[in-house]
Amino acid sequence: MDHLVADFVVRPKDEAEIIEILKVCYEHDVPVTTRGAGTGNYGQAMPMRGGCVMHLKHLDQVTHCEPGRVIVQPGCLLKDVDAHCIAACGHELRMFSSTWATATIGGFIAGGSGGVGSVTWGSLRELGNIIRLRVVTMEKEPRILEFTGEELARVSHAYGTNGIITELELPLAPAYDWTHCFVTAKDWDRAMECADALANENGILLKIASVYEAPTAKAYFQRVAPYVADDDHLIGLMIAPHNMEGFLTWMGRNPDMKLIYRSDDHDWARAPGHVFEYGWNHTTLRALKVDPSITYLQVRYGFPDHFRLVNEMRAAFPDELIQHLEAIRMEGGKIGFAGLTLVKFTTEERLDEIVKAHEAAGALIFNPHRYTLEEGGRQHADPRQLDFKKEADPKGLLNPGKMIAWDDPDWDYAKMYAYPGMTKAPESA
Amino acid sequence: MDHLVADFVVRPKDEAEIIEILKVCYEHDVPVTTRGAGTGNYGQAMPMRGGCVMHLKHLDQVTHCEPGRVIVQPGCLLKDVDAHCIAACGHELRMFSSTWATATIGGFIAGGSGGVGSVTWGSLRELGNIIRLRVVTMEKEPRILEFTGEELARVSHAYGTNGIITELELPLAPAYDWTHCFVTAKDWDRAMECADALANENGILLKIASVYEAPTAKAYFQRVAPYVADDDHLIGLMIAPHNMEGFLTWMGRNPDMKLIYRSDDHDWARAPGHVFEYGWNHTTLRALKVDPSITYLQVRYGFPDHFRLVNEMRAAFPDELIQHLEAIRMEGGKIGFAGLTLVKFTTEERLDEIVKAHEAAGALIFNPHRYTLEEGGRQHADPRQLDFKKEADPKGLLNPGKMIAWDDPDWDYAKMYAYPGMTKAPESA
Repeated sequence: MDHLVADFVVRPKDEAEIIEILKVCYEHDVPVTTRGAGTGNYGQAMPMRGGCVMHLKHLDQVTHCEPGRVIVQPGCLLKDVDAHCIAACGHELRMFSSTWATATIGGFIAGGSGGVGSVTWGSLRELGNIIRLRVVTMEKEPRILEFTGEELARVSHAYGTNGIITELELPLAPAYDWTHCFVTAKDWDRAMECADALANENGILLKIASVYEAPTAKAYFQRVAPYVADDDHLIGLMIAPHNMEGFLTWMGRNPDMKLIYRSDDHDWARAPGHVFEYGWNHTTLRALKVDPSITYLQVRYGFPDHFRLVNEMRAAFPDELIQHLEAIRMEGGKIGFAGLTLVKFTTEERLDEIVKAHEAAGALIFNPHRYTLEEGGRQHADPRQLDFKKEADPKGLLNPGKMIAWDDPDWDYAKMYAYPGMTKAPESA
Repeated sequence: MDHLVADFVVRPKDEAEIIEILKVCYEHDVPVTTRGAGTGNYGQAMPMRGGCVMHLKHLDQVTHCEPGRVIVQPGCLLKDVDAHCIAACGHELRMFSSTWATATIGGFIAGGSGGVGSVTWGSLRELGNIIRLRVVTMEKEPRILEFTGEELARVSHAYGTNGIITELELPLAPAYDWTHCFVTAKDWDRAMECADALANENGILLKIASVYEAPTAKAYFQRVAPYVADDDHLIGLMIAPHNMEGFLTWMGRNPDMKLIYRSDDHDWARAPGHVFEYGWNHTTLRALKVDPSITYLQVRYGFPDHFRLVNEMRAAFPDELIQHLEAIRMEGGKIGFAGLTLVKFTTEERLDEIVKAHEAAGALIFNPHRYTLEEGGRQHADPRQLDFKKEADPKGLLNPGKMIAWDDPDWDYAKMYAYPGMTKAPESA
């Protein structure tokens, strides 16, 4: 997709300017692809047919904040939402992506599914994790609509294909000065079990619990590498500071686990920074810096089969996969694993074989090697999103090529969807 | 136990006075039974051998408070801990008993196991739910000891049999202006399922989820009665206000559930007050006001068998039991039920039969008709508590008669323990 470029870029200052832009683009049949900070890794903000790219960086204000609730504009960086809310009321976002420092809240809600915090709060699609979204439509006379309840599913995680989010109301969680910890284990099963057990400790509040199979820590985590061996599996944790005593008691019961780092008391020459910046998509980003041939999968290992499924995949592809798990609270309240498996890439055919083996075993795949909503999601059209696109974007100008259901309702998902309207690559490419 | 009275009562002002009292009592072999507000319902603060009853009502200060953590003296009422912490830092206790308005924090930790809040945070015995206890021993020269980690089990939930708690450090949760709700259901299984499902909604933060079998609401809840029918089962909920939208969406998906009351928007002539004051032990208290012949059981229905176990007991004793369930997060992170079953009392023999039927089915009983630690708990001696009593109370003067393991290490629990040292009832009684 390297050749995909916009014809022009706009940076509206407010909702009124967004409406003005949409009216003009509608009038002239110009596609509009909305973009936050550009950290999305599914290509979801690439302008497939050129036209207008609309940056929302100037809509960056927190307009209301109280314990449990924030109202914010879409272009506010995740870290800036947190900074504002922590200062104003001692609360922070329930969940955020590992790209917290650079990504926008609008991009996270429009393209994300969960992340740091999902070990406690589950996923964004679950009831209560988004309160309200305000959306502008792409019509001759754009409408401003407010979505709550069941209607949220029409526009959240829709890549901006059926409306432009101009305001978000989200629940907050209490902010603490989280203690960032790294723990090592020599035995893989124990590493998995312990992350799962900690995530199920009712009295120990966590923000993240990641498991990295060896040699991830030694090979890809530069600041951690001096403190681990090749065969050390690593667990990354963020623990509420008032639960550190409880956590240390738990560690005492699990003497095969070794605490190598805690952010509030360590002698590392170079501190590793935020533990969450080793987790979720950042694991792959770090691995790619060392080995550009690496790629990855996104997998869901559901409770109560999560241990078995991980180990089946681990046994099936011992030389090609390196496991990376995130403990998450799944729909129904039980802890399972999201897998962001590192893959030693050989060919596309082999990658497809690996994907199919996961699916055959019962491990749900969210394919990060696809740019459409459906293929990166649950591989079927969401009629709520499609129906709303018919209303809100009758000319199909918003982020074209990203919703298969709009372009080709009979698509059977047997192979990767290639948007026919995509701007052709130049001859020389 | 009506005839049990102390020879005298003391109300120390501070830890130094406690130490002075303990020294004098030790010197003169006087038993000391510590008492909070006297709301305990196991008889755990009754002076079995007379002697000294020590009220801690004057040790009632919150000495430190920050988001996530409070340090408090034992005689502070639960409601006063919350009032202080909410004002000082927007936090409140993770859990408390339904006697929140009248009970002390010291009594709750020394005699309680969990309560309102356990649907999110589990039980007091779990790691992270108590940070530190400061304890004075009953020796010639009383010692002041600080307990954390594994050592907490020596003195928490010990009824003051092996030391006097003089300071508590506890974790806090964020305080919200909880929305108190009542929901009715005509079908019992659906009422159970819905309480369980709500407790497992990751994005909907609850403080309590209670289920009351019909005709509890109509027969015993006076202010609720006008709004329910005899055959209405009732669900009591406290929901974070920023999750009311999510809850209402959930209600829309469950049209057989009927929302009859929400504290932030209702037209009831007389508001019912705190929903938690209908739950936990308050259910029994309310039933007793209407029907003094009622008694109750305390049951644990463990995940994943909780629905089946409840219904087995319901089928076995259709005319004698009225189910009252509290959804709680059990050890291991899964939602199950605590049962505080209302029992239409006939004879002690029949009550014992009912208890035995629960145990035979696999439903753990915490017998509220016993005054000893062991019989009201897991029916075996806790060597950690006994060992510490040997150190801390060598003369066995602290709350005598409450720790069977101290009095009769070979006790087999076949029948109710009757403390031989108990003050005899007067002839005329």
